Amino acid sequence: MGKRALISVSKKTSILSFAKNLNLLGYEIVSTGGTYKILKENGLNVIKVSDVTGFPEIMEGRVKTLHPKIHGGLLAVRDNEEHSKALKEHDIKPIDIVVVNLYPFKETILKENVSLEEAIENIDIGGPSMIRAAAKNNKYVTIIVDPEDYDRVIEEIKEYGNTKEETRFYLAAKAFGHTALYDSLIYNYLTRIAGEQFPDVMTFAYEKEQDMRYGENPHQKAAFYKNTLKSYGISDCIKLQGKELSFNNINDANAAIELLKEFREAAVVALKHTNPCGVAVAENIYDAYIKAYECDPVSIFGGIVALNRTVDVKTAEELIKIFLEIVIAPDFEIEALEVLKKKKNLRILRLKEGYVNEYDIKKVEGGLLVQEKDEIDLNEDDLKIVTKKVPSEKEMKDLRFAWKVVKHVKSNAIVLAKDGATVGIGAGQVNRIWPTKQAIKHAGDKANGSVLASDGFFPFSDVVKTAKESGITAIIQPGGSIKDKDSIEEADKSNISMVFTGIRHFKH
Amino acid sequence: MGKRALISVSKKTSILSFAKNLNLLGYEIVSTGGTYKILKENGLNVIKVSDVTGFPEIMEGRVKTLHPKIHGGLLAVRDNEEHSKALKEHDIKPIDIVVVNLYPFKETILKENVSLEEAIENIDIGGPSMIRAAAKNNKYVTIIVDPEDYDRVIEEIKEYGNTKEETRFYLAAKAFGHTALYDSLIYNYLTRIAGEQFPDVMTFAYEKEQDMRYGENPHQKAAFYKNTLKSYGISDCIKLQGKELSFNNINDANAAIELLKEFREAAVVALKHTNPCGVAVAENIYDAYIKAYECDPVSIFGGIVALNRTVDVKTAEELIKIFLEIVIAPDFEIEALEVLKKKKNLRILRLKEGYVNEYDIKKVEGGLLVQEKDEIDLNEDDLKIVTKKVPSEKEMKDLRFAWKVVKHVKSNAIVLAKDGATVGIGAGQVNRIWPTKQAIKHAGDKANGSVLASDGFFPFSDVVKTAKESGITAIIQPGGSIKDKDSIEEADKSNISMVFTGIRHFKH
Repeated sequence: MGKRALISVSKKTSILSFAKNLNLLGYEIVSTGGTYKILKENGLNVIKVSDVTGFPEIMEGRVKTLHPKIHGGLLAVRDNEEHSKALKEHDIKPIDIVVVNLYPFKETILKENVSLEEAIENIDIGGPSMIRAAAKNNKYVTIIVDPEDYDRVIEEIKEYGNTKEETRFYLAAKAFGHTALYDSLIYNYLTRIAGEQFPDVMTFAYEKEQDMRYGENPHQKAAFYKNTLKSYGISDCIKLQGKELSFNNINDANAAIELLKEFREAAVVALKHTNPCGVAVAENIYDAYIKAYECDPVSIFGGIVALNRTVDVKTAEELIKIFLEIVIAPDFEIEALEVLKKKKNLRILRLKEGYVNEYDIKKVEGGLLVQEKDEIDLNEDDLKIVTKKVPSEKEMKDLRFAWKVVKHVKSNAIVLAKDGATVGIGAGQVNRIWPTKQAIKHAGDKANGSVLASDGFFPFSDVVKTAKESGITAIIQPGGSIKDKDSIEEADKSNISMVFTGIRHFKH
Repeated sequence: MGKRALISVSKKTSILSFAKNLNLLGYEIVSTGGTYKILKENGLNVIKVSDVTGFPEIMEGRVKTLHPKIHGGLLAVRDNEEHSKALKEHDIKPIDIVVVNLYPFKETILKENVSLEEAIENIDIGGPSMIRAAAKNNKYVTIIVDPEDYDRVIEEIKEYGNTKEETRFYLAAKAFGHTALYDSLIYNYLTRIAGEQFPDVMTFAYEKEQDMRYGENPHQKAAFYKNTLKSYGISDCIKLQGKELSFNNINDANAAIELLKEFREAAVVALKHTNPCGVAVAENIYDAYIKAYECDPVSIFGGIVALNRTVDVKTAEELIKIFLEIVIAPDFEIEALEVLKKKKNLRILRLKEGYVNEYDIKKVEGGLLVQEKDEIDLNEDDLKIVTKKVPSEKEMKDLRFAWKVVKHVKSNAIVLAKDGATVGIGAGQVNRIWPTKQAIKHAGDKANGSVLASDGFFPFSDVVKTAKESGITAIIQPGGSIKDKDSIEEADKSNISMVFTGIRHFKH
């Protein structure tokens, strides 16, 4: 008995030559709607599904392959007596190869202003049923969901008379990835419309962008995956020069870009190990870079610099004076790019516009913490000046700047700033006084006349006391400690102004 | 025309009373195999699927509902003329309610020594087809995959004559979560067997354990999800007392447990903001706690303490002397638990045994970094003593201890240890010298005679120089810097012994 292939594809890439090859190898082809038409017009030997089922395609194609003559052919265990009997009795011919890809649900929901009705119409029912049936029966059936696999299948049939068992298993696994991804997209689309932010089941599906040489450390294997619907930020950067990004590059660049996005004015972020080491804003990008560099000319070595304006030649000339891993900017003047390219090992990334509302995720053993991203802005109406001294306009400007930075420093975090630049950053500490002392120490003389931002409240008045000793003039912090009064009293004694935000910015 | 419900359930919970209610409300019930039998035996009005399709169940039930008479009934758009015509022409009766849950694939693969064949046999084909068809047509069809929804459906039919449109939409979304989860489990099972660690598509499915009051900060909404197959670690702890865990509680407790798991001997970890503030090992758990506490009696305030032995009364008495958020241990003597419970707000967690090989995940904008967990052990054979001075046995013991701790401190990290306890920890810094100086500063007098561990190599010899000045006698670090020679020379000059591990332990 000849072999049979069932072909029903939404993406028609390479299907004609693949089907021709199957015909040549003696396969009878069964097909539906549009696929049937193309194959027939091109002179292939092809049978309509309805001729197999003896049942017409009904309801605008909603029901065509959901029939025992098809699914019996897909699911029959060939060496099972009862199954064989059923095939014979009901005149069902086994199907050996299935080529299916699905109605373009993803492409549909990515269209602008798509209606719910149109989206739902593009949920494929018959396709996943065939894919899953064929994949379950991979001991006998070859399931293809990706045109990339056409050649391999043809080669194996030519060489061995059939696909190899391990190939069928691999393709079956891949097929379930296809249906899992498909239903995950549908699920997330529908739950969003239903207004469910944290449903009982959370499914994520990502597509691989690249294998990594290694992960956070050389002994850890790793890969980078992209949001299957829309990527942005570090996932959507264009690499203009340089080696492939490493795991830590991507993680660090992401942290730099997220901080950079806080600023409308010309801004530069220098970053190492996910913590900023210098951040500054200025009238132009050159000045911003010089200021960011001067925050900490030592730690910036080997770091990442992200800028939010087109990089000009003058800035590029500065950037190449030190060893950097990555420079990121929305654009580069042509000559500036030439200057940067003198550094052969420098990775140069162009940052595109874009935004997707995504969850923030933290992996813990056996589970997942899922939360909204920390995207809240300072609410000026909620700011409370709690001290006798009111911050000057200049202080207020620096307080707002320092507040944006401290949000992106690992907790507990303290940031000192002056004239639109950080002068000292204390990061990742287990109490509140250590990052304060560290930020002050790193600032040196620049601490005098600077302002201080804290990502969490002050449990004691020691932070204010320490701030005073080094000439800090204004403080911004969430407030909310049971000992706020002590800190306020201390600030009043020290002629320091203090602002409560009512917002906390822990980041771990 | 009477209404019709199709019921085909693997989990039979509450199905009888639900079906009875449907009968009472005038629904005709169509059913398959085991479900049919139960309903019939209990005197319900029920029709066999095969009587609807005119086609027998074949291939041991592999093919029963995959038929146009069923799927036409599920997919028909009631107010579409062509669809109505097709219903009439082919004598298809619309189906209004579908109750399906799936072959227990998850339960099957959780069984010990399950064969691949058995797992594959438990992949449901007909069920997901019906669920998806009904869910797609939610404008008309009510799809139920969860017995929890039975009552709501009956109530609405009683009150409004049918389910509400928004309920049908909600149930349809939930149904796609059910199939997405199902296929994700199958996919991950098959790809693991196929030996693919990082396949082109990565799907994750988690089930909600609890909504959180908020996320990392009060303005962020959040929820905690568990691995749908197997949880362990923080996701599998039993809460013996205390308020619900917060987002940061879970994140911190996870970090504490992961560090604790490094030790076989009695060990205690105190932790704040994902970084340890005191870690110690000892002959017994009491001594270990006292030593861990003494590392940093200030930062431990409001922290988490994790212990890897049964907590006895003596230790409990010590634990309640300070304010702690959480105490975690594998067990508690009954009286010790009574002591701890005196602190009404203390969360007490019992840690169970268990391990699952999982990915580590880092979320970045528009993508996901996926890697193997950092689970490598120190390979004693690969340890290289690079200095003239060889570490003493006692030093070597402390170096191994400090190395385990530094692996769990945020990078860049330096840990000083002496006599099986940390004496200074420097965490989360943008260069290598700052965490060194911080660890030394926090250690105070205890730095003298301690050993030092570094999660990354030394870019310059300044770390060794600084170590010497404070009396540190031995160092463990990855090695691999182009300036290793300088550090080795400096160590030799200073009579410090230094060991290279060849392994790096960045953690961000």
